[in-house]
Amino acid sequence: MEQNDETRASILNYMKSKIREIKDWPKTGVTFRDVCPLFEDPRAFRGCIDLLRERYSSYQFDVVAGVEARGFVIGAALAYSLDKGFLPLRKEGKLPGPNLSKTYELEYGSSTLEVQNFSSRKGLRVIVVDDLLAKGGTLQAACLLIESCGGIVVEASVLVELSSLQGRKILQDRGWEVFSLLKYDED
Amino acid sequence: MEQNDETRASILNYMKSKIREIKDWPKTGVTFRDVCPLFEDPRAFRGCIDLLRERYSSYQFDVVAGVEARGFVIGAALAYSLDKGFLPLRKEGKLPGPNLSKTYELEYGSSTLEVQNFSSRKGLRVIVVDDLLAKGGTLQAACLLIESCGGIVVEASVLVELSSLQGRKILQDRGWEVFSLLKYDED
Repeated sequence: MEQNDETRASILNYMKSKIREIKDWPKTGVTFRDVCPLFEDPRAFRGCIDLLRERYSSYQFDVVAGVEARGFVIGAALAYSLDKGFLPLRKEGKLPGPNLSKTYELEYGSSTLEVQNFSSRKGLRVIVVDDLLAKGGTLQAACLLIESCGGIVVEASVLVELSSLQGRKILQDRGWEVFSLLKYDED
Repeated sequence: MEQNDETRASILNYMKSKIREIKDWPKTGVTFRDVCPLFEDPRAFRGCIDLLRERYSSYQFDVVAGVEARGFVIGAALAYSLDKGFLPLRKEGKLPGPNLSKTYELEYGSSTLEVQNFSSRKGLRVIVVDDLLAKGGTLQAACLLIESCGGIVVEASVLVELSSLQGRKILQDRGWEVFSLLKYDED
Protein backbone atom coordinates (compact mmCIF):
# COMPACT_ATOMS: atom_id res chain seq x y z
CA MET A 1 0.00 0.00 0.00
CA GLU A 2 1.32 3.44 -0.83
CA GLN A 3 1.73 5.98 1.89
CA ASN A 4 -0.45 8.45 -0.07
CA ASP A 5 -3.41 6.13 0.44
CA GLU A 6 -3.37 6.66 4.16
CA THR A 7 -3.20 9.53 6.56
CA ARG A 8 -0.03 9.97 8.56
CA ALA A 9 -1.93 9.20 11.75
CA SER A 10 -3.20 5.87 10.52
CA ILE A 11 0.27 4.82 9.37
CA LEU A 12 1.71 5.75 12.76
CA ASN A 13 -1.06 3.83 14.53
CA TYR A 14 -0.43 0.83 12.36
CA MET A 15 3.31 1.05 13.05
CA LYS A 16 2.67 1.29 16.78
CA SER A 17 0.45 -1.81 16.63
CA LYS A 18 3.49 -3.75 15.35
CA ILE A 19 5.77 -2.84 18.27
CA ARG A 20 5.79 -5.53 20.96
CA GLU A 21 5.99 -4.57 24.61
CA ILE A 22 8.17 -6.95 26.62
CA LYS A 23 8.18 -6.57 30.36
CA ASP A 24 11.36 -7.21 32.37
CA TRP A 25 13.70 -7.45 29.39
CA PRO A 26 16.69 -7.27 29.15
CA LYS A 27 16.36 -7.00 32.97
CA THR A 28 13.72 -6.78 35.69
CA GLY A 29 11.88 -3.47 35.81
CA VAL A 30 12.63 -2.52 32.20
CA THR A 31 9.91 -2.59 29.56
CA PHE A 32 11.47 -3.25 26.18
CA ARG A 33 9.91 -1.92 22.96
CA ASP A 34 10.61 -4.55 20.34
CA VAL A 35 10.59 -2.98 16.87
CA CYS A 36 11.54 -6.18 15.02
CA PRO A 37 7.90 -7.07 14.17
CA LEU A 38 7.53 -3.58 12.68
CA PHE A 39 10.58 -4.21 10.47
CA GLU A 40 9.17 -7.55 9.35
CA ASP A 41 5.79 -6.11 8.34
CA PRO A 42 6.12 -4.58 4.84
CA ARG A 43 3.48 -1.89 5.36
CA ALA A 44 4.84 -0.81 8.74
CA PHE A 45 8.47 -0.86 7.57
CA ARG A 46 7.65 1.16 4.44
CA GLY A 47 5.58 3.55 6.54
CA CYS A 48 8.51 4.18 8.85
CA ILE A 49 11.03 4.79 6.06
CA ASP A 50 8.64 6.82 3.90
CA LEU A 51 7.77 9.17 6.77
CA LEU A 52 11.48 9.77 7.41
CA ARG A 53 12.18 10.13 3.69
CA GLU A 54 9.40 12.69 3.46
CA ARG A 55 10.89 14.66 6.35
CA TYR A 56 14.47 14.63 5.12
CA SER A 57 13.85 15.09 1.40
CA SER A 58 13.97 18.87 1.92
CA TYR A 59 17.02 18.81 4.23
CA GLN A 60 20.53 19.57 3.06
CA PHE A 61 22.63 16.62 4.13
CA ASP A 62 25.25 14.21 2.80
CA VAL A 63 25.02 10.92 4.62
CA VAL A 64 22.88 8.90 7.05
CA ALA A 65 24.78 7.48 10.03
CA GLY A 66 23.17 4.49 11.76
CA VAL A 67 23.85 3.15 15.24
CA GLU A 68 24.53 -0.60 15.44
CA ALA A 69 22.46 -2.63 15.03
CA ARG A 70 18.78 -1.64 14.75
CA GLY A 71 19.84 1.81 13.58
CA PHE A 72 21.41 0.07 10.55
CA VAL A 73 17.99 -1.23 9.48
CA ILE A 74 16.29 2.17 9.51
CA GLY A 75 19.33 4.21 8.52
CA ALA A 76 20.37 2.13 5.51
CA ALA A 77 16.86 2.04 4.04
CA LEU A 78 16.51 5.80 4.61
CA ALA A 79 19.90 6.48 2.99
CA TYR A 80 18.94 4.41 -0.06
CA SER A 81 15.55 6.11 -0.33
CA LEU A 82 17.20 9.54 -0.57
CA ASP A 83 20.22 8.53 -2.68
CA LYS A 84 22.70 9.06 0.14
CA GLY A 85 25.50 6.97 1.53
CA PHE A 86 25.28 5.09 4.82
CA LEU A 87 27.87 5.45 7.59
CA PRO A 88 27.86 2.67 10.22
CA LEU A 89 28.56 3.59 13.86
CA ARG A 90 29.64 0.27 15.32
CA LYS A 91 30.23 -1.40 18.65
CA GLU A 92 33.84 -1.62 19.80
CA GLY A 93 36.16 -3.99 17.95
CA LYS A 94 34.03 -4.51 14.85
CA LEU A 95 35.65 -1.98 12.50
CA PRO A 96 39.10 -2.24 10.96
CA GLY A 97 40.74 1.09 11.76
CA PRO A 98 41.81 3.74 11.94
CA ASN A 99 38.81 4.49 14.16
CA LEU A 100 37.57 7.12 16.55
CA SER A 101 35.69 5.84 19.59
CA LYS A 102 33.39 7.11 22.34
CA THR A 103 32.45 5.27 25.53
CA TYR A 104 29.11 6.04 27.19
CA GLU A 105 26.86 4.91 30.02
CA LEU A 106 23.80 2.76 29.33
CA GLU A 107 20.78 1.87 31.42
CA TYR A 108 22.38 -1.58 31.74
CA GLY A 109 26.15 -0.84 31.94
CA SER A 110 28.48 0.95 29.52
CA SER A 111 29.31 0.61 25.86
CA THR A 112 31.60 2.03 23.18
CA LEU A 113 30.75 3.22 19.68
CA GLU A 114 33.31 3.57 16.90
CA VAL A 115 33.49 5.22 13.50
CA GLN A 116 36.07 4.70 10.79
CA ASN A 117 38.33 7.69 10.32
CA PHE A 118 40.66 7.21 7.36
CA SER A 119 39.39 10.05 5.17
CA SER A 120 38.27 13.58 5.93
CA ARG A 121 34.64 14.18 6.80
CA LYS A 122 35.14 17.88 7.43
CA GLY A 123 31.83 19.68 6.93
CA LEU A 124 29.94 16.47 6.11
CA ARG A 125 26.27 16.96 7.01
CA VAL A 126 24.90 13.91 8.80
CA ILE A 127 21.49 12.61 9.89
CA VAL A 128 22.11 10.26 12.85
CA VAL A 129 19.59 7.41 13.11
CA ASP A 130 18.75 4.88 15.80
CA ASP A 131 15.64 2.85 16.57
CA LEU A 132 14.99 4.23 20.04
CA LEU A 133 15.71 7.24 22.25
CA ALA A 134 15.62 6.50 25.99
CA LYS A 135 18.05 8.41 28.24
CA GLY A 136 20.02 9.63 25.23
CA GLY A 137 23.43 8.17 26.09
CA THR A 138 23.85 6.21 22.88
CA LEU A 139 22.72 9.01 20.59
CA GLN A 140 24.87 11.51 22.45
CA ALA A 141 27.91 9.30 21.86
CA ALA A 142 26.91 8.90 18.22
CA CYS A 143 26.59 12.67 17.70
CA LEU A 144 29.90 13.35 19.48
CA LEU A 145 31.58 10.75 17.24
CA ILE A 146 30.24 12.48 14.14
CA GLU A 147 31.55 15.81 15.38
CA SER A 148 34.91 14.34 16.37
CA CYS A 149 35.49 13.17 12.79
CA GLY A 150 34.63 16.62 11.42
CA GLY A 151 30.96 16.11 10.58
CA ILE A 152 27.95 18.27 11.39
CA VAL A 153 24.92 16.67 13.05
CA VAL A 154 21.90 17.93 11.13
CA GLU A 155 19.45 15.95 13.27
CA ALA A 156 19.27 12.89 15.51
CA SER A 157 16.31 10.81 14.38
CA VAL A 158 14.58 7.82 15.96
CA LEU A 159 11.60 5.59 15.39
CA VAL A 160 10.60 5.41 19.08
CA GLU A 161 11.07 8.01 21.82
CA LEU A 162 10.48 7.14 25.48
CA SER A 163 9.56 10.71 26.39
CA SER A 164 9.61 10.47 30.16
CA LEU A 165 13.28 9.39 30.17
CA GLN A 166 14.13 12.85 28.80
CA GLY A 167 16.86 11.85 26.38
CA ARG A 168 15.60 14.60 24.08
CA LYS A 169 16.61 17.24 26.61
CA ILE A 170 20.15 15.83 26.94
CA LEU A 171 20.62 16.04 23.18
CA GLN A 172 18.95 19.41 22.69
CA ASP A 173 20.99 20.91 25.54
CA ARG A 174 24.11 20.08 23.47
CA GLY A 175 22.62 21.85 20.48
CA TRP A 176 21.42 18.90 18.42
CA GLU A 177 17.99 18.75 16.80
CA VAL A 178 15.92 15.68 17.68
CA PHE A 179 13.09 13.99 15.79
CA SER A 180 11.00 10.92 16.63
CA LEU A 181 8.17 9.22 14.78
CA LEU A 182 6.49 7.55 17.78
CA LYS A 183 6.39 8.67 21.41
CA TYR A 184 5.69 6.59 24.51
CA ASP A 185 4.98 8.59 27.66
CA GLU A 186 4.19 5.93 30.20
CA ASP A 187 7.71 4.71 30.95
CA MET B 1 23.50 9.04 -10.79
CA GLU B 2 20.88 6.56 -12.00
CA GLN B 3 21.87 2.98 -12.62
CA ASN B 4 20.47 3.20 -16.18
CA ASP B 5 23.20 5.71 -16.99
CA GLU B 6 25.91 3.13 -16.55
CA THR B 7 26.62 -0.36 -17.65
CA ARG B 8 26.45 -3.09 -15.04
CA ALA B 9 30.17 -3.69 -15.41
CA SER B 10 31.11 -0.11 -14.69
CA ILE B 11 28.91 -0.01 -11.59
CA LEU B 12 30.50 -3.22 -10.34
CA ASN B 13 33.99 -1.84 -11.00
CA TYR B 14 33.13 1.33 -9.17
CA MET B 15 31.74 -0.67 -6.23
CA LYS B 16 34.89 -2.79 -6.13
CA SER B 17 37.05 0.36 -6.06
CA LYS B 18 35.29 1.32 -2.81
CA ILE B 19 36.10 -1.92 -0.96
CA ARG B 20 39.22 -1.59 1.21
CA GLU B 21 41.60 -4.51 1.52
CA ILE B 22 43.01 -4.84 5.04
CA LYS B 23 45.78 -7.33 5.60
CA ASP B 24 46.04 -9.28 8.87
CA TRP B 25 42.64 -8.24 10.23
CA PRO B 26 40.91 -9.38 12.39
CA LYS B 27 43.92 -11.68 12.75
CA THR B 28 47.27 -12.44 11.14
CA GLY B 29 47.03 -14.15 7.78
CA VAL B 30 43.48 -13.00 7.06
CA THR B 31 42.78 -10.33 4.43
CA PHE B 32 39.63 -8.48 5.35
CA ARG B 33 37.38 -6.93 2.69
CA ASP B 34 35.99 -3.79 4.25
CA VAL B 35 32.68 -2.85 2.60
CA CYS B 36 32.00 0.17 4.84
CA PRO B 37 33.47 2.69 2.37
CA LEU B 38 31.16 1.23 -0.29
CA PHE B 39 28.17 1.81 2.01
CA GLU B 40 29.26 5.39 2.65
CA ASP B 41 29.58 6.25 -1.04
CA PRO B 42 26.10 7.11 -2.40
CA ARG B 43 26.77 5.90 -5.93
CA ALA B 44 28.34 2.61 -4.83
CA PHE B 45 25.65 1.95 -2.21
CA ARG B 46 22.84 2.68 -4.66
CA GLY B 47 24.58 0.53 -7.27
CA CYS B 48 24.70 -2.41 -4.87
CA ILE B 49 21.05 -2.15 -3.85
CA ASP B 50 19.75 -1.41 -7.35
CA LEU B 51 21.53 -4.43 -8.83
CA LEU B 52 19.97 -6.66 -6.16
CA ARG B 53 16.57 -5.02 -6.58
CA GLU B 54 16.79 -5.62 -10.33
CA ARG B 55 17.55 -9.30 -9.73
CA TYR B 56 14.83 -9.92 -7.16
CA SER B 57 12.06 -7.81 -8.67
CA SER B 58 10.97 -10.84 -10.70
CA TYR B 59 11.31 -13.33 -7.82
CA GLN B 60 8.36 -14.52 -5.75
CA PHE B 61 9.29 -13.88 -2.15
CA ASP B 62 7.87 -12.37 1.03
CA VAL B 63 10.69 -11.03 3.16
CA VAL B 64 14.40 -10.20 3.18
CA ALA B 65 16.34 -11.68 6.11
CA GLY B 66 19.63 -9.96 6.97
CA VAL B 67 22.53 -11.33 9.00
CA GLU B 68 23.78 -9.02 11.78
CA ALA B 69 25.28 -6.54 11.29
CA ARG B 70 26.48 -5.66 7.78
CA GLY B 71 23.71 -7.83 6.33
CA PHE B 72 21.26 -5.42 7.96
CA VAL B 73 22.60 -2.55 5.84
CA ILE B 74 22.16 -4.33 2.51
CA GLY B 75 19.10 -6.36 3.49
CA ALA B 76 17.03 -3.51 4.91
CA ALA B 77 17.65 -1.25 1.91
CA LEU B 78 16.83 -4.11 -0.46
CA ALA B 79 13.63 -4.94 1.46
CA TYR B 80 12.51 -1.31 1.31
CA SER B 81 13.33 -1.06 -2.39
CA LEU B 82 11.00 -3.98 -3.18
CA ASP B 83 8.25 -3.18 -0.67
CA LYS B 84 9.03 -6.17 1.54
CA GLY B 85 9.53 -6.59 5.25
CA PHE B 86 12.94 -7.10 6.85
CA LEU B 87 13.70 -9.98 9.22
CA PRO B 88 16.81 -9.55 11.39
CA LEU B 89 18.96 -12.61 12.14
CA ARG B 90 20.84 -11.54 15.24
CA LYS B 91 23.79 -12.54 17.36
CA GLU B 92 22.99 -14.45 20.55
CA GLY B 93 21.30 -12.57 23.38
CA LYS B 94 20.12 -9.55 21.39
CA LEU B 95 16.53 -10.58 20.69
CA PRO B 96 13.73 -10.80 23.23
CA GLY B 97 12.27 -14.27 22.71
CA PRO B 98 10.88 -16.66 22.00
CA ASN B 99 13.80 -17.35 19.66
CA LEU B 100 15.27 -20.16 17.65
CA SER B 101 19.06 -20.33 17.54
CA LYS B 102 21.86 -21.97 15.57
CA THR B 103 25.52 -22.18 16.55
CA TYR B 104 28.18 -22.42 13.85
CA GLU B 105 31.93 -22.43 13.32
CA LEU B 106 33.70 -19.33 12.06
CA GLU B 107 37.18 -18.76 10.69
CA TYR B 108 37.95 -17.10 14.03
CA GLY B 109 35.95 -19.17 16.58
CA SER B 110 32.24 -19.94 16.84
CA SER B 111 29.11 -17.86 16.95
CA THR B 112 25.34 -18.17 17.34
CA LEU B 113 22.57 -16.63 15.26
CA GLU B 114 19.00 -16.22 16.49
CA VAL B 115 15.62 -15.46 14.94
CA GLN B 116 12.42 -14.49 16.73
CA ASN B 117 9.81 -17.19 16.63
CA PHE B 118 6.53 -15.99 18.13
CA SER B 119 4.36 -16.23 15.01
CA SER B 120 4.16 -18.76 12.22
CA ARG B 121 6.40 -18.31 9.19
CA LYS B 122 5.23 -21.52 7.53
CA GLY B 123 5.78 -21.22 3.78
CA LEU B 124 7.30 -17.74 4.02
CA ARG B 125 9.62 -17.20 1.06
CA VAL B 126 12.88 -15.57 2.15
CA ILE B 127 15.91 -13.97 0.48
CA VAL B 128 18.80 -14.30 2.96
CA VAL B 129 21.34 -11.46 2.72
CA ASP B 130 24.82 -10.91 4.11
CA ASP B 131 27.73 -8.74 3.04
CA LEU B 132 30.24 -11.52 2.41
CA LEU B 133 30.45 -15.24 1.65
CA ALA B 134 33.70 -16.88 2.78
CA LYS B 135 33.53 -20.50 4.00
CA GLY B 136 29.74 -20.36 4.22
CA GLY B 137 29.29 -21.12 7.92
CA THR B 138 27.33 -17.99 8.76
CA LEU B 139 25.03 -18.20 5.76
CA GLN B 140 24.45 -21.90 6.33
CA ALA B 141 23.34 -21.15 9.89
CA ALA B 142 21.14 -18.34 8.59
CA CYS B 143 19.46 -20.59 6.03
CA LEU B 144 18.96 -23.39 8.56
CA LEU B 145 17.38 -20.85 10.95
CA ILE B 146 14.94 -19.73 8.26
CA GLU B 147 13.99 -23.34 7.57
CA SER B 148 13.67 -24.17 11.26
CA CYS B 149 11.04 -21.46 11.67
CA GLY B 150 9.06 -22.77 8.69
CA GLY B 151 10.43 -20.51 5.95
CA ILE B 152 11.71 -21.35 2.49
CA VAL B 153 15.12 -20.04 1.40
CA VAL B 154 14.62 -18.64 -2.10
CA GLU B 155 18.25 -17.56 -2.39
CA ALA B 156 21.27 -16.64 -0.28
CA SER B 157 22.63 -13.36 -1.59
CA VAL B 158 25.86 -11.51 -0.86
CA LEU B 159 27.74 -8.45 -1.99
CA VAL B 160 31.18 -10.11 -1.91
CA GLU B 161 32.10 -13.76 -2.53
CA LEU B 162 35.60 -15.06 -1.72
CA SER B 163 35.38 -17.77 -4.35
CA SER B 164 38.40 -19.85 -3.41
CA LEU B 165 37.02 -20.50 0.10
CA GLN B 166 34.20 -22.48 -1.55
CA GLY B 167 31.35 -21.37 0.67
CA ARG B 168 29.12 -21.50 -2.39
CA LYS B 169 29.57 -25.25 -2.66
CA ILE B 170 28.64 -25.80 1.00
CA LEU B 171 25.38 -23.92 0.48
CA GLN B 172 24.54 -25.38 -2.91
CA ASP B 173 25.17 -28.91 -1.63
CA ARG B 174 22.36 -28.31 0.87
CA GLY B 175 20.06 -27.22 -1.94
CA TRP B 176 20.19 -23.44 -1.56
CA GLU B 177 20.67 -21.07 -4.47
CA VAL B 178 23.55 -18.60 -4.09
CA PHE B 179 24.11 -15.21 -5.69
CA SER B 180 26.97 -12.73 -5.35
CA LEU B 181 27.56 -9.34 -6.92
CA LEU B 182 31.38 -9.29 -6.64
CA LYS B 183 33.83 -12.19 -6.63
CA TYR B 184 37.40 -12.27 -5.34
CA ASP B 185 39.44 -15.28 -6.41
CA GLU B 186 42.83 -14.58 -4.92
CA ASP B 187 42.12 -15.50 -1.30
